[in-house]
Amino acid sequence: MNAPHDYIRDGAEIYRRSFATIRSEADLARFAPDEARVAVRVIHACGMVEVAADLVFSPGFTAAARSALLDGKPILCDSKMVANGITRTRLPADNPVVCTLGEPEVAGLAEMIGNTRTAAAMELWEDRMDGAVIAIGNAPTALFHLFEMLDAGAPTPAAVIGMPVGFVGAAESKEALEADGRVPFLTVRGRKGGSAMAVAAINALASEQE
Amino acid sequence: MNAPHDYIRDGAEIYRRSFATIRSEADLARFAPDEARVAVRVIHACGMVEVAADLVFSPGFTAAARSALLDGKPILCDSKMVANGITRTRLPADNPVVCTLGEPEVAGLAEMIGNTRTAAAMELWEDRMDGAVIAIGNAPTALFHLFEMLDAGAPTPAAVIGMPVGFVGAAESKEALEADGRVPFLTVRGRKGGSAMAVAAINALASEQE
Repeated sequence: MNAPHDYIRDGAEIYRRSFATIRSEADLARFAPDEARVAVRVIHACGMVEVAADLVFSPGFTAAARSALLDGKPILCDSKMVANGITRTRLPADNPVVCTLGEPEVAGLAEMIGNTRTAAAMELWEDRMDGAVIAIGNAPTALFHLFEMLDAGAPTPAAVIGMPVGFVGAAESKEALEADGRVPFLTVRGRKGGSAMAVAAINALASEQE
Repeated sequence: MNAPHDYIRDGAEIYRRSFATIRSEADLARFAPDEARVAVRVIHACGMVEVAADLVFSPGFTAAARSALLDGKPILCDSKMVANGITRTRLPADNPVVCTLGEPEVAGLAEMIGNTRTAAAMELWEDRMDGAVIAIGNAPTALFHLFEMLDAGAPTPAAVIGMPVGFVGAAESKEALEADGRVPFLTVRGRKGGSAMAVAAINALASEQE
């Protein structure tokens, strides 16, 4: 038997203190209030206040994403971890949360289009893309393939959270997102990113309750 | 129509290049080869080679975790994102992946023990803890509560991946894990951590295929 540990056991109090610490330490000055709320949750998800410097919100992103969610539009996710992390009770209109990666036709589609399974799975989004919120927290190929689908005439989503992570294509795909300009976006520059950050952004946009 | 993007579309090639970049940039010199394989995947999950400096493997951790997985022991996860991210096809013995957070009795248990729902959900692990691999990628309270369960006589797991993230209790719970010494562990010091890193560690331990 070791000495008992003294720690905060109240979930709501943990959130309050976490967000207070983030707001006192992170440089959020360049963000509008609704962007800052998103930034705070993204920082919370990765434990790094310094990530604030790498976040880029396109003009109108938070309004477009929030309005799509209020309208009940679906959230299209590139990975099961993203889909699974979204807090359903925060969603304002019981929005469908979609990840098509597990569909049986994905392996064949990947071979057909010569891309990763994650990119191929997006081909199954097409009838749900119009006005949707897209959350990419894993694969750079998914973000690159989104541009290809838009080039080919896919319906335009309302907003994109483009936060793939990693060492091959992640930074480049996010630079391409900033350059593309067709869809309001939130991204994090460089190699950092991931499903937890993408989930945090959705959870922040879903409800005004901090 | 924008100019098409040139990017690598082959998943296996993306993995190969990612791991090669990590091995060329990260300082892995202090790790044994089996630890380095885990470190590489954890770095891959967060996009930060500098996280190598914060990883701590207790002596015997990789052998204990690997042996438990080969034995078919369950993987007990503190969050659905962790449970969901584990690649089932890499597991060596069709190991059960358990997350009890969604069980109906958790809210009542949380009130009863005066702790978070995540900590309370662990009370439902008890008959599966003996020799199990525990993966904590979200809640500091889960890691703290693990010590309390061991104090109270819960069965000893084979190994713990203790990687909660955040601003309240995360760093402290991981310091406590290093000081505790009852269970072989892998942790990442400080505020960083998260479900993606914990998943990456499990996926690395699950198969020798890089």
